[in-house]
Amino acid sequence: MAILVVGSVALDSLETPFGRIEATVGGSAVHFAAAASLFAPVQIVAVTGDDYPSEKLAFLEDRGVDLSGVETQPGESFHWSGRYSHDLSSPETLETRLGVFADFHPRIPPEFRSPDMLFLGNIDPCLQIEVLDQVSSARLVACDTMNYWIEGSRTKLMELLGRVDILMANDSEIRQLAGEMNLVAASRWVQSQGPTHVVVKKGEHGAILFHEEEIFFVPGYPLEDLNDPTGAGDSFAGGFLGSLHGAVDLSGAALRRASVLGSALGSFAVEDFGVQRLARLSQEEVAHRVRELWGMTQFDIH
Amino acid sequence: MAILVVGSVALDSLETPFGRIEATVGGSAVHFAAAASLFAPVQIVAVTGDDYPSEKLAFLEDRGVDLSGVETQPGESFHWSGRYSHDLSSPETLETRLGVFADFHPRIPPEFRSPDMLFLGNIDPCLQIEVLDQVSSARLVACDTMNYWIEGSRTKLMELLGRVDILMANDSEIRQLAGEMNLVAASRWVQSQGPTHVVVKKGEHGAILFHEEEIFFVPGYPLEDLNDPTGAGDSFAGGFLGSLHGAVDLSGAALRRASVLGSALGSFAVEDFGVQRLARLSQEEVAHRVRELWGMTQFDIH
Repeated sequence: MAILVVGSVALDSLETPFGRIEATVGGSAVHFAAAASLFAPVQIVAVTGDDYPSEKLAFLEDRGVDLSGVETQPGESFHWSGRYSHDLSSPETLETRLGVFADFHPRIPPEFRSPDMLFLGNIDPCLQIEVLDQVSSARLVACDTMNYWIEGSRTKLMELLGRVDILMANDSEIRQLAGEMNLVAASRWVQSQGPTHVVVKKGEHGAILFHEEEIFFVPGYPLEDLNDPTGAGDSFAGGFLGSLHGAVDLSGAALRRASVLGSALGSFAVEDFGVQRLARLSQEEVAHRVRELWGMTQFDIH
Repeated sequence: MAILVVGSVALDSLETPFGRIEATVGGSAVHFAAAASLFAPVQIVAVTGDDYPSEKLAFLEDRGVDLSGVETQPGESFHWSGRYSHDLSSPETLETRLGVFADFHPRIPPEFRSPDMLFLGNIDPCLQIEVLDQVSSARLVACDTMNYWIEGSRTKLMELLGRVDILMANDSEIRQLAGEMNLVAASRWVQSQGPTHVVVKKGEHGAILFHEEEIFFVPGYPLEDLNDPTGAGDSFAGGFLGSLHGAVDLSGAALRRASVLGSALGSFAVEDFGVQRLARLSQEEVAHRVRELWGMTQFDIH
């Protein structure tokens, strides 16, 4: 059984202090699949315009990603342009052209409706719910969201949260969602609204996993050379669910390992523009980085 | 042999979203000693005005802190007023009255000149160097600094760095000092200027220890109830050096444990205003929090 991801398959034009790239393949589903496909079979449901350079997704097919759920519609593909300032924190959006994405309603092919796990990328909570309504069973459902939906679609988002197992979002989004500055209190509140687990993504500072009553910290891998933060969060999610695909159960130990693999994948993602680094990434490189993260966090009490 | 700290013994008037307090005892030497004295004998060298409520430092004497190096001069004590906004990051300074601190030149009593370890609190690098000139030997010398000295006393600060073993500073200060946004590159550069080790303090995100070629991450303890961030960094330093006092050598393992103890002490410090939490803190509470931090960072690779 595969991991199903529903999200955007987009074109990104990116500018960072380290360079720029025009109309590179991106979007939450592409970043997620680029990471998860190293560890598990992945199915994508998304929409593109007839201008999309589908040949640039060949690296995903080479890794066994099933793209048959990516509809092509007449018109322009979703295109996002953004610019990062020197600290590489949240980007300035220069332009968003929704194109065919504006009318997207995910249609889950019958053979995709019982995935092992489901990742609902950062899209309208109404669409995320439409996906859930079509999926008959999944061992784990995780979702992402953003400030735009927290502000504008709160009711639908709260309905969604009642139906997912894990919310993965940035620290600022968790705080905004809960209306609570204290991150622990905010995350605990989110857990009270449905998700058993919350993953708080903190960029260079790593992530915090709130799993049931426990808390687990994973650092961000310390990079000297990074170029483009776009897609780091989706790559984290891909590594996280990819790791769990091989786990016999969703124990705390498995969720912790998943968080570390997520952090490792997120760190690789930012090393190059777009999905270029993940496209040439090997399992051996990931395993090496996970061992390094282990070495950077271990201590003896006595 | 004791840990010698040279820094400020001050009065702080603090306002945070959770309350306010007027003219409470504070300053880098007081916060440091409040933390370190749980684990080691501590000596303070500092200056106060004749208005200082010295009886409020009785809790330090009760823990064996030697205050005989705190000179009293006619005049007003160093008084800092600050206000923290909702995110509890860097405070707005409302007023700084240097008082007798303006003419402070540390005089190290002869019996304090061969400490086990030395902590140079955040004061003018010229004064920090004056201290070093009077100390004949110490197993470890650590110092703190801030943006004010990085901008205004760079030459002296660089001279100081050539003579210390550890720089402990905030991430923004390390970046500013190195003129380098990338924190890994910035810390490595600082190491190339003298200190064998660099501790990068990141507030709620914890700290990073760069020890020789290695990197160690310690998270910030996740608090639901915090009131006043003042002195967290000095409390971290006190826990760090206090931990090393009991270590037979300054191995990587010892430095990692020291970082964890530092993080634990920093987290206790912020729970209440001023030094009130550290004044009533027990070793058992610290040991419990260290075990909790251990539990929040451990994972198996397989």
